[in-house]
Amino acid sequence: MSDLDRLPIRAELRGQSPYGAPQLDVPVRLNTNENPYPLPAALVARIAERVAAAARDLNRYPDRDAVELRTALADYLSRTGDYPLGPERVWAANGSNEVLQQLLQAFGGPGRTALGFDPSYSMHALIARGTGTEWISGARGADYTIDLDEALARIAEHRPNVVFLCSPNNPTGTALAGEVVERVYDAAQAARPSLVIVDEAYVEFAHTASLLPLLEGRPHLVVSRTMSKAFGAAGLRLGYLAADAAVVDAVQLVRLPYHLSAVNQATALACLEFEDTLLGYVRELKEQRDRLVEELRALGCEVTDSDANFVQFGRFDDPHAIWAGILEHGVLVRDNGVPGMLRVTAGTDAENTAFLDAMRHVLKSARPKD
Amino acid sequence: MSDLDRLPIRAELRGQSPYGAPQLDVPVRLNTNENPYPLPAALVARIAERVAAAARDLNRYPDRDAVELRTALADYLSRTGDYPLGPERVWAANGSNEVLQQLLQAFGGPGRTALGFDPSYSMHALIARGTGTEWISGARGADYTIDLDEALARIAEHRPNVVFLCSPNNPTGTALAGEVVERVYDAAQAARPSLVIVDEAYVEFAHTASLLPLLEGRPHLVVSRTMSKAFGAAGLRLGYLAADAAVVDAVQLVRLPYHLSAVNQATALACLEFEDTLLGYVRELKEQRDRLVEELRALGCEVTDSDANFVQFGRFDDPHAIWAGILEHGVLVRDNGVPGMLRVTAGTDAENTAFLDAMRHVLKSARPKD
Repeated sequence: MSDLDRLPIRAELRGQSPYGAPQLDVPVRLNTNENPYPLPAALVARIAERVAAAARDLNRYPDRDAVELRTALADYLSRTGDYPLGPERVWAANGSNEVLQQLLQAFGGPGRTALGFDPSYSMHALIARGTGTEWISGARGADYTIDLDEALARIAEHRPNVVFLCSPNNPTGTALAGEVVERVYDAAQAARPSLVIVDEAYVEFAHTASLLPLLEGRPHLVVSRTMSKAFGAAGLRLGYLAADAAVVDAVQLVRLPYHLSAVNQATALACLEFEDTLLGYVRELKEQRDRLVEELRALGCEVTDSDANFVQFGRFDDPHAIWAGILEHGVLVRDNGVPGMLRVTAGTDAENTAFLDAMRHVLKSARPKD
Repeated sequence: MSDLDRLPIRAELRGQSPYGAPQLDVPVRLNTNENPYPLPAALVARIAERVAAAARDLNRYPDRDAVELRTALADYLSRTGDYPLGPERVWAANGSNEVLQQLLQAFGGPGRTALGFDPSYSMHALIARGTGTEWISGARGADYTIDLDEALARIAEHRPNVVFLCSPNNPTGTALAGEVVERVYDAAQAARPSLVIVDEAYVEFAHTASLLPLLEGRPHLVVSRTMSKAFGAAGLRLGYLAADAAVVDAVQLVRLPYHLSAVNQATALACLEFEDTLLGYVRELKEQRDRLVEELRALGCEVTDSDANFVQFGRFDDPHAIWAGILEHGVLVRDNGVPGMLRVTAGTDAENTAFLDAMRHVLKSARPKD
């Protein structure tokens, strides 16, 4: 019995391990869907400037409601999402994980259920469980899209309080058609008043537009976003949501007061000033993503269509062995448990070349000899 | 029915308001126990420097385990707390609120109970409820100390899973004797294996030493701390705990991955470099706090002995009227619901003078005319 097992922790936590990808010190890290471009020097200088201004008054609590930041985020969404939004319809927290946790504290929790369609972002289930919400795992189709008949049947059967959608979906890269969201939303509302969350963490990388305009007339729909990917700011932990203003009021009932530090708010504001530069990197990464899809297919891999900054590929009898083989070449990808498949993040041109070279070696040595 | 009431939020949230002190724009803010000293210019420069270094790699996720920061915090505690601690026994999060939330997710939650002794920091009960933990409110003695017989009786009666202590206690300023913690801990363990949390957010302002040495041989004892008060960094939202290493392992099962941003970690490390300067401000504030106690008593107020950076005073038939009277003089204090009492934060010399002047006016006009 370890020391942890001797503690009076909750029964469901016994024997569990903390969530998180292995962090290995390798030359090429393509395992956590990070943006490979360091922030440009001008943005680093602007962050230092804004943080210094905020730090002078760090003895005071931060703006509890983060109004300036929510206004800037609302402006960004309005500009890029083809749907006008004010700050009263936007909320921000420490990563979209915290945004989702707050939503589940208000709309899920003990005695309530949340339904998702797996494989998807595994934190959805973990955050649900962490808030005492029962997790119901629905299935995706063989091509990793949402099978609408299956989805509507699960909703009718379980009448969930919260439904999770993810577009583009992590780890498969699959985007959702707006019609799927509309049908799922209608079915979910028909079953009971429930919250439908569309996780758009990777939407800036999609070939299709954001689903934000679907918020119109859907008071129980939420779109969650993050600055970790398109804004190249995984280290900042800034997630946000857009929804009806009443949903924002609801999360304020459960959020920890002053949850967002003054330095995080200042840094996020600086990054938002550099939208043009950062979205330029996104365009480059979309090209790199398309290159990965194309070249992996040329190598004979099964590759899932991707609208994200990563690519799911396979199909391998022993994906972990392929993962380990790639790692031997100094490239770390993600083995996240989808049967037969691995996931690689779109890195820089040089990183993707290193990955593809590694794949060629690994596939060659994996082939049976004549 | 408001828009919020139309949403399918949890029943227990209906009709509630978000927690938080009113934020009014007044010349003298002595209502949220903030440190009145802005950070010194050298520290602001050092924060900018450290944040700029972190911002360059902001595209990468932060150190998920915040090892450098936890090491620096452990060093600080070891130096000042008369008890040697390594980073494996220290954990950090976004404010002590998040630290407490994580503890309750692991050790409290649905079907479990937490006991506190009111009046105390009202977030203890709110965070308990937010994690589905049933809150049991025990009473304090008439002098706001913990009545040991009463406390032991409540523990035996309710067999709580988590016990909250707070020393110095917010909002009364009351410090706990080590013996009280020892007896409460023993009683809590006798009732069932349970976690005992001592919230030491204000301990640097106390006349007495930290209770950290009590961690020795008590694997279920936790001491929580914050950089909001003594380190003058309320805007940073950096809370931490010290406990047995297994407790740190336990919170890692429920913490959101990468919960602490790279800029928060960098800023906290900078502040810790300026420990000597910042603890110098603490010494000045302790003098100001003692001055408030003395002068309020000279004005005829009932004043609770204080070991914190604030002072509880009364006793008023209508504390809200006194609060409003003080506010008319441009000074904001806290009316936080302790019958007959108000709470004032120790500010700068000039701020405290303004407050005491306001009190003289308010008390004079409140007195019945001959």
